[in-house]
Amino acid sequence: MMPRAGIVVTGTEVLTGRVVDRNGPWLAERLRDLGVDLAHIAVVGDRPGDVEAALRFFAAEGVDVVCTSGGLGPTEDDLTAQVVGDFQGRPLEHQPALEERVWAVVSGLLSRWPGLDQDALRQSARKQAMVPRGANVLDPVGTAPGLVVPPPDGAAGPTVVVLPGPPRELQPMWRDAEANPLFRAAIAGATVYEQRMLRLFGIPESEIAETMRQARDAGVDLDALEITTCLRRGEVEIVTRYEPQAAATYAAFDAAVRERHADTLFSDDGTSVDQQVAELLRSSGRTIATAESCTGGLLLGRLTELAGSSDYVLGGIVAYANAVKSAVAGVDPALIERVGAVSQEVAEALADGARSVTGADVGVGITGVAGPGGGTEEKPVGLVWLSVAVGDAQRLTRSITIPGSRADVRDRATTVGLHLVRRALLGES
Amino acid sequence: MMPRAGIVVTGTEVLTGRVVDRNGPWLAERLRDLGVDLAHIAVVGDRPGDVEAALRFFAAEGVDVVCTSGGLGPTEDDLTAQVVGDFQGRPLEHQPALEERVWAVVSGLLSRWPGLDQDALRQSARKQAMVPRGANVLDPVGTAPGLVVPPPDGAAGPTVVVLPGPPRELQPMWRDAEANPLFRAAIAGATVYEQRMLRLFGIPESEIAETMRQARDAGVDLDALEITTCLRRGEVEIVTRYEPQAAATYAAFDAAVRERHADTLFSDDGTSVDQQVAELLRSSGRTIATAESCTGGLLLGRLTELAGSSDYVLGGIVAYANAVKSAVAGVDPALIERVGAVSQEVAEALADGARSVTGADVGVGITGVAGPGGGTEEKPVGLVWLSVAVGDAQRLTRSITIPGSRADVRDRATTVGLHLVRRALLGES
Repeated sequence: MMPRAGIVVTGTEVLTGRVVDRNGPWLAERLRDLGVDLAHIAVVGDRPGDVEAALRFFAAEGVDVVCTSGGLGPTEDDLTAQVVGDFQGRPLEHQPALEERVWAVVSGLLSRWPGLDQDALRQSARKQAMVPRGANVLDPVGTAPGLVVPPPDGAAGPTVVVLPGPPRELQPMWRDAEANPLFRAAIAGATVYEQRMLRLFGIPESEIAETMRQARDAGVDLDALEITTCLRRGEVEIVTRYEPQAAATYAAFDAAVRERHADTLFSDDGTSVDQQVAELLRSSGRTIATAESCTGGLLLGRLTELAGSSDYVLGGIVAYANAVKSAVAGVDPALIERVGAVSQEVAEALADGARSVTGADVGVGITGVAGPGGGTEEKPVGLVWLSVAVGDAQRLTRSITIPGSRADVRDRATTVGLHLVRRALLGES
Repeated sequence: MMPRAGIVVTGTEVLTGRVVDRNGPWLAERLRDLGVDLAHIAVVGDRPGDVEAALRFFAAEGVDVVCTSGGLGPTEDDLTAQVVGDFQGRPLEHQPALEERVWAVVSGLLSRWPGLDQDALRQSARKQAMVPRGANVLDPVGTAPGLVVPPPDGAAGPTVVVLPGPPRELQPMWRDAEANPLFRAAIAGATVYEQRMLRLFGIPESEIAETMRQARDAGVDLDALEITTCLRRGEVEIVTRYEPQAAATYAAFDAAVRERHADTLFSDDGTSVDQQVAELLRSSGRTIATAESCTGGLLLGRLTELAGSSDYVLGGIVAYANAVKSAVAGVDPALIERVGAVSQEVAEALADGARSVTGADVGVGITGVAGPGGGTEEKPVGLVWLSVAVGDAQRLTRSITIPGSRADVRDRATTVGLHLVRRALLGES
C-alpha cells in the first residue's frame, strides 16, 4: 500500500495570512517525489491545543508520517518540539552538545548586531536544544535543529518530522530528513508515480473539460489518470499523475489535448514561458529591453528573475509619467497628444524606444490603464496595449482588456507580454 | 462561548503549490472580524474522500461553521457541492431558475471566444445549478453560485458555507454569506476581540522575545494577551489580540516595546512602509524616480503597486547592463571602471541619474550582486548598495549583505530601499 503523510504548518501569522505559506506545498511535492500520498495540509495557530488536534487528526486518519513546519524559534509562542514530544509520549531532554552547536551560530549574530542582549540569546540557544527522548536531531541550518520523532515505544502511529519555518532553513534540512533512517522506515514500500504537465495560453478552463469529455467518449479510460486543471495567471495548466502501467492511457489523453489545442499549447515539459523566453533569447544571441508604463517595471522584474539573465537583458525604462515616455524613451510628445498614452502607436513607439535607447535587439512596449481610476468609455480600466519589436523588420502588437483588480491587470499584462515576446521570437504572428 | 470555525481549501493545485492559496487566510481574517475563533485551515486534494475527511475532522472538533473554497467549477474534479450535500444528508436537486442565471453569465463568454463549444458550456451551467436540498444559494459573482448548507434536519453539527475558488469571486460573495440567516444563526453569541499591530525594521526576532521577558518580569500579565511575532521581508511584526477588558495590560506591553525599540518601530497603525512612503511623497508634493540594477525593476514595481501612484512616481530606469547605466542613467563609465558597478559611488550616481534623467525630486539607486553567480571575496553574493538623494542637498547611502537565494536578495533589497526612502523623507540619518 502507498504510504500516506500529512503536513502541519504552524503559526498564527500563516493562519491569518500575514505570511504566505511556502512550506506546505513544497513539502507536498517532495513527498510525492518519494511516492508518498498526501491528502491534507493543516494550517494551525500557535496554541498547543491547535497543533495537538492536527496531530490527532492525522493519527486517526492512519498516516505513516506527519511533517511539521514552524514553531521552533526562540520566542515563547514557538512550541512545536514540546507539543510533538508530549504527543509521542517522549519528554524533552536537554542536550548540552546541541546547545553549544546552536550557540556557536547564535553568537555569530553578536558581530552583526553588537547591541544584542547576550542573556536572551543564551536562553534561546538553551530552548532550542530541548529534544524529545529517543528522537533523532537534524542539524540546524539556521539556529533551529529539526527532529524526527518516532511513535511511543511499542505503539503504532505516525513518525513526526519537525522542521523549521523559514524556507531557507527547511529546504536544505529536508535532504537530511529524507535520508533519516526513522523516516525511511516509516515510508517503506512507496512506489513512484509518473507526473506530466501541459501548459496552454489563451483559452478558458471549460475548453479542457470538453476535451476530457470527448476523450472519454472516444474510449480513453480517464479514471486511470489523476487529472487536475487550473487557471493561473491566464495560463491553463493540466497536471496528470498516473501509475506507470497507465502510460498508454496517458498517451491517448495527451494526443487528444494536442489535437484540439495545437495553437494554444506552449509547454509540455514543465517549462514556464519565462524559461522559454530566456532560452529563445540565449540560443539566438539576442538581447532584450523594455519600456513599461502600467506594469511599472514588473515585466523587467520577471525577465531578470532567472539567474544568468544579465546575459540577454540589457535593462529598461519605466515611463510612468508622459514626460518620461518622451524624455527617456523617446516617444514623440505630439504622438501622445494626438492618440493618447494608451494606444497602439505609443506601445509601438515604446518598443522602438526601448531598443534605440539601450541598443537591444528586442524591444517591448506596454501601456495601459491599471486602474482603479483613469478609465474612460473608450479606454476602460484593464485595457492594455503591448508591442514587441524584433530587429527593424518584425513586430507584433496586441491589445487586451483584463478584468479584475489593479494587481490582476498588472500581473496579467506581464504574462501576456512574455507570451507575445515568445511568439515574436518564434517568428509567429 | 466563542463560536468556532474551520476552513477547508480544496484543490490539488493548491495542495501541490502550483497555486498559492489566498482564500484561507482571507477568510480567517473575516471570521476573526466577526469574533469567530479559528484554529485550522485544512488544504485538501480534489478526491471526494479528502474533502469529506476534513469535514469529519471539523465536525468532531465541534466547530459551528466550516467554510470551503474551491471545487465549484465546471470540470469533473470540482466536487464540493456533491461532497458537502452527502455529508449533510442533503441530496442534490436541480434548480432550473439557477441554471438560467448561470447560463446568462456563461453564454456571455461566447462573445469573447466565439469558437467555444456551446454544449460544453450548457453542461457546465447545469452542473453548477445542482443544490443540496434545504441549502441557501449565494448569488454567483462569476459563474459558480455559493451555498450555505445546514446540518441534517434535527441533528447537531456545523453549518457549511461553500464558496468558489477564485478570490475575485469569493471575496464579493462573502458579503452575502455574512448576512445569510443560516450562517448568522450558526455563529450566534460571538464577541469581538481587539487587535493591534506594531512593525519594526532592522532587529532580529529574539529581541522581541527579550522585551516580552522583561515586561513579564516587570509584572505585565502577558497571559491576558495573544501575542504573535513574525519576521517578514526583514520586518518584525508584533500582532496582539485581546479581550476588551485587557486594554490596560496591552497598553503596558505597548509601552515596553516603544521604550526598548524606539529607533526601529516604524508603524503602530497597521500601515506598511509602502503606504508611509506614498503618504510622505504625496504630502510633501515630491516626485520620485529610481535607477535599479540587481532588483531589476522590482522597487519601481512596488512603488506603483498602490492606486494613484502616478501622482508622485515619474518612472525609472533598469540599468542591468553597465552600458545602460552609462548611456541611459548617466553614470560615468570611468567611474564604473574604477570602483566597479557594485559600489557606493555607483549607487549614488544611479540615484543622481534617476533624478536628472526624469526631473524627479527624489532619486533612488540600487546596485548589488543578486547571485547565484557573480560574487567575489570582496563583493559577495547578497551585497547591495542603496542610495537615496532628496533634492541636491540630502543623501542617505547604505550597504547591506543579504543572505539567501537570488529571490530573497532582490526582495529584501527592495524592502530596504523603501525603508531608506522613508528615512530620507523624514530627514533622518
